[in-house]
Amino acid sequence: MTTQATKPVLTTLKWVPSMFIGHVRELRVRWALEEMGRPYDVRTVGDERSAPAYRQQQPFGQVPVYEENGVSLFESGAILHHLALQSTALMPADAVGQAQVTAWMFAALNSMEPEIAPLLSFEFLPPDTSWLPTARAMFLERAHKRVHDLGQWLKDREYLTGRFSAADILMASVLRMTANSNVLPEHPAAAAYLARCDARPAYRKALADHHALFDNAPAPAGV
Amino acid sequence: MTTQATKPVLTTLKWVPSMFIGHVRELRVRWALEEMGRPYDVRTVGDERSAPAYRQQQPFGQVPVYEENGVSLFESGAILHHLALQSTALMPADAVGQAQVTAWMFAALNSMEPEIAPLLSFEFLPPDTSWLPTARAMFLERAHKRVHDLGQWLKDREYLTGRFSAADILMASVLRMTANSNVLPEHPAAAAYLARCDARPAYRKALADHHALFDNAPAPAGV
Repeated sequence: MTTQATKPVLTTLKWVPSMFIGHVRELRVRWALEEMGRPYDVRTVGDERSAPAYRQQQPFGQVPVYEENGVSLFESGAILHHLALQSTALMPADAVGQAQVTAWMFAALNSMEPEIAPLLSFEFLPPDTSWLPTARAMFLERAHKRVHDLGQWLKDREYLTGRFSAADILMASVLRMTANSNVLPEHPAAAAYLARCDARPAYRKALADHHALFDNAPAPAGV
Repeated sequence: MTTQATKPVLTTLKWVPSMFIGHVRELRVRWALEEMGRPYDVRTVGDERSAPAYRQQQPFGQVPVYEENGVSLFESGAILHHLALQSTALMPADAVGQAQVTAWMFAALNSMEPEIAPLLSFEFLPPDTSWLPTARAMFLERAHKRVHDLGQWLKDREYLTGRFSAADILMASVLRMTANSNVLPEHPAAAAYLARCDARPAYRKALADHHALFDNAPAPAGV
């Protein structure tokens, strides 16, 4: 039995509020594993996320955690980078190509996501929150600025670095956070790019498995 | 002449408002290069950040850009990852050790920074902004939560992965954003960690060079 015969384990939540379905970051890892054609097992966690044992794997008590051959990793960006080093489906094999994919992975999570994620989180606030209109308008402007620049980059490219890579998984996940904010229709190249990403069979399969887990999960007591 | 004889070039801004000095992300790259003992040249940019030629290097018009042997990279996280692959001063040589440093690099920029950076950006808003107290209180709570968890992790560790790495450069840069928000005094292990990072000779040198560039830079016309 080789080490590859052991399936990796993806740790995700037992349950999330319905509005978070589609946005739990485990979906990014599922998608990457599907692009690689790699089977995996799923472990779910609830309150044990606060326990010291879990914090040794995930210091902030979040998901996903990814385990493979005795190695445990956290942070969706880092897990995707680790997987991409194993598969040209996610990253080229040459050092320069890998550095360029890595640049776009960090760009998705550090230049795009912090400007866009607030739009999603505002959807979960009480609609009569007094400061919501002002803050929302500010972040809408910031999101448009970033998506505009991304659209300029994507005008002549099918994917961020030409061919599909792990960076596109992260970027598409971030762009999807604008779904209810009407940002993408103003940026056709970015909108077409997200549609290309969303149409990939690996994403469809990952999303179906994500829904299969969460759509009918029983809410924990007290929720 | 070997390729290593060509000094890499760090692109940064010509000028920043004084409140940003110490927080421009070029400082992260300077620090990494100093830890490696690697000399570099500096190029500064102003309005040309909007031009198509610059956007091919940095699609969002930001700094830093890092060029080395004909390869151009953007995103401070990605630049540090690229440098770390070249030097055990920034990352171990084994794949598992590299994956763990990478996990903490993404954690600094995607789990910590989005919860902490708003505290810094609030400092630049007019103090009579109506929603500022509510938003500041909300993000102060979020920052405390993250820094608490980080402090638990750091209780028995000198640096994030045991020994100093590129992840510590990113994490220290993020923690420094709390300087005026009085977060760290409640989290002694995190505060002691930042003090250890800040005391490193490579950081002191990088910070001095950062100040030398910006402290007396002439403000552009119209500012």
